[in-house]
Amino acid sequence: MTPARDPARVSVVGVGLIGGSVALAARERCSAHVTGWDPAPGAAAAVCDVVADDLGSAVAEAELVVVAAPVDALAGVIESVLAACPEEAVVTDVGSTKQAVCEAIDDPRFIGGHPMAGGERAGSGSARSDLFAGATWYLTPSARTEGIRLERLTRFLTSLGGRPQAIEPAAHDRLMAAVSHLPHLLANLLVEAAGEGVVSAGPSFRDATRVAGANPPLWRSIYLSNRVALGAAVDEAAARLLEVRRWLEEDDGEALERWQEDAGRRRTSLDVAITGEEVREVRAVLPNRPGVLADLALALGRERINIHDLSLSPSQDNSSGEVVVWVAAGMADRAAELIQELLAS
Amino acid sequence: MTPARDPARVSVVGVGLIGGSVALAARERCSAHVTGWDPAPGAAAAVCDVVADDLGSAVAEAELVVVAAPVDALAGVIESVLAACPEEAVVTDVGSTKQAVCEAIDDPRFIGGHPMAGGERAGSGSARSDLFAGATWYLTPSARTEGIRLERLTRFLTSLGGRPQAIEPAAHDRLMAAVSHLPHLLANLLVEAAGEGVVSAGPSFRDATRVAGANPPLWRSIYLSNRVALGAAVDEAAARLLEVRRWLEEDDGEALERWQEDAGRRRTSLDVAITGEEVREVRAVLPNRPGVLADLALALGRERINIHDLSLSPSQDNSSGEVVVWVAAGMADRAAELIQELLAS
Repeated sequence: MTPARDPARVSVVGVGLIGGSVALAARERCSAHVTGWDPAPGAAAAVCDVVADDLGSAVAEAELVVVAAPVDALAGVIESVLAACPEEAVVTDVGSTKQAVCEAIDDPRFIGGHPMAGGERAGSGSARSDLFAGATWYLTPSARTEGIRLERLTRFLTSLGGRPQAIEPAAHDRLMAAVSHLPHLLANLLVEAAGEGVVSAGPSFRDATRVAGANPPLWRSIYLSNRVALGAAVDEAAARLLEVRRWLEEDDGEALERWQEDAGRRRTSLDVAITGEEVREVRAVLPNRPGVLADLALALGRERINIHDLSLSPSQDNSSGEVVVWVAAGMADRAAELIQELLAS
Repeated sequence: MTPARDPARVSVVGVGLIGGSVALAARERCSAHVTGWDPAPGAAAAVCDVVADDLGSAVAEAELVVVAAPVDALAGVIESVLAACPEEAVVTDVGSTKQAVCEAIDDPRFIGGHPMAGGERAGSGSARSDLFAGATWYLTPSARTEGIRLERLTRFLTSLGGRPQAIEPAAHDRLMAAVSHLPHLLANLLVEAAGEGVVSAGPSFRDATRVAGANPPLWRSIYLSNRVALGAAVDEAAARLLEVRRWLEEDDGEALERWQEDAGRRRTSLDVAITGEEVREVRAVLPNRPGVLADLALALGRERINIHDLSLSPSQDNSSGEVVVWVAAGMADRAAELIQELLAS
């Protein structure tokens, strides 16, 4: 870490969860002087050193500008920023799709970006300086990008706690279509398919529909801003569904089983790629008394078994519940033993 | 509860998780004498009073027979049971699809059934007498079903802890296609769409793909046994995807936003229908230290706030993690306060 070489003057345009967290992290982790601007008055005050009166004055002196505007307004805001900021500045954004904005902006000062952090909570009130700790931060430098600017941006994002990773804009958008936008579409589709009359559903349904109907105006613009890659992903999904349809019609159990096996293998390699290790699930049925989850977490925590995820399914009468914890494959047997000891005690 | 009127002699054919749990519950909760039979030697011994040498002798004296065979073997096993059991007996099954078996079996002694309990764990070793506590137990009586047999079966299943609910076989299969089989297909589809090169994915992807590739031989036969209703659900899903595709192509933000809103409304009513109350999520970022989850569960448990579900998303460097808990909407504000107090302490 070489804070002396981080930009001393950072501007944040659009101060919501992401912009606000950039502001806090830049002040705390890089000792930067942060100027903020947001169309909603008051949003920037709590997290920036200075709140600018207008976008132009917000960026006039900036060494580095982070634009955190909604994706459908992004290109316009970046153009305004580029018109007002110094020649030496680096300008980046945090939009969740990259191809459209990278095609719209033709300026060597701009390098597209997208941190894998945030989620559904909106507003600078949820901002925090460690939001980007360890998070992959995609960057989409172009052929026109100068090495020195890319280096300055990379250093800054690393100081914020992020892990910058360069990617082609189109590849980025395909990736996001696959791991985020398509899952959101399919969640909607599942609650729609369930129709009326559902009184009982297992964890597979609950998990798969958790993000159904998330923030409609936000997701409308995310879907649309990724219409090329998401459209292709939707096409492929529909084609695969029609193939599954054919297997069902032709009673092709072998094809279905092969596909199911293949999906299992892919799931395991994705676990390894995403969490860095193979993860295994451990199931147990716990009596539904206050503190039982606490005891379980303590028992695993004491032996430093990291819980990657945990899911609860209360029985319908709430007298007990199935708990599933995901832990490193190598710790799964020990975790199962600890849970059994807990239940026996 | 009138245990005296429960069947005194119960036979369980196929002693895995479900059959084994029926056996345990029938002995504990109805004081029944349970005879078991399973093609795998040894499976029945731990949970039944008597292990029969063959299927015929297993059911020869039974008042009530529960067939818990794999769906693709179901009709054949039920035929053998009906050939060997007394005229007065009631025979039911626990298969996860109902139309095929109800069409195949034409005998007034048979009433199809399907308890909403179990999950992925297999084997009588996981059997437990409270598996069905509070669980919806679908029954598919036909026009030929005699009221007295339906009443005896209903009483028995209620004694096991279940909540019997009559449904048409075709409606049952449509429901299962929507809340279980289609989610499994879409999970496979998502891990396939993700392809190679994924190093980071949010909780929406993780949740939606959790059941990808589950138990291939089991799911092959579930998919095939529900080919009519699942085929129709797949058709509808593919048609909706093509419509979404058109909205993307035509830049129809209004249609996308309306669909997203509609999905949100459906999600909320499903929550209410399934859990009996409106559920709201509360998010917080916790430091990743052993015991922190325990403290959280304790804090909520102390005030009797029931955690419907809980999901963890560790930050990529594991220094902290976002936790999402789902609690009754009326308790959400208090839960959020308690979590904030915990973080401040």
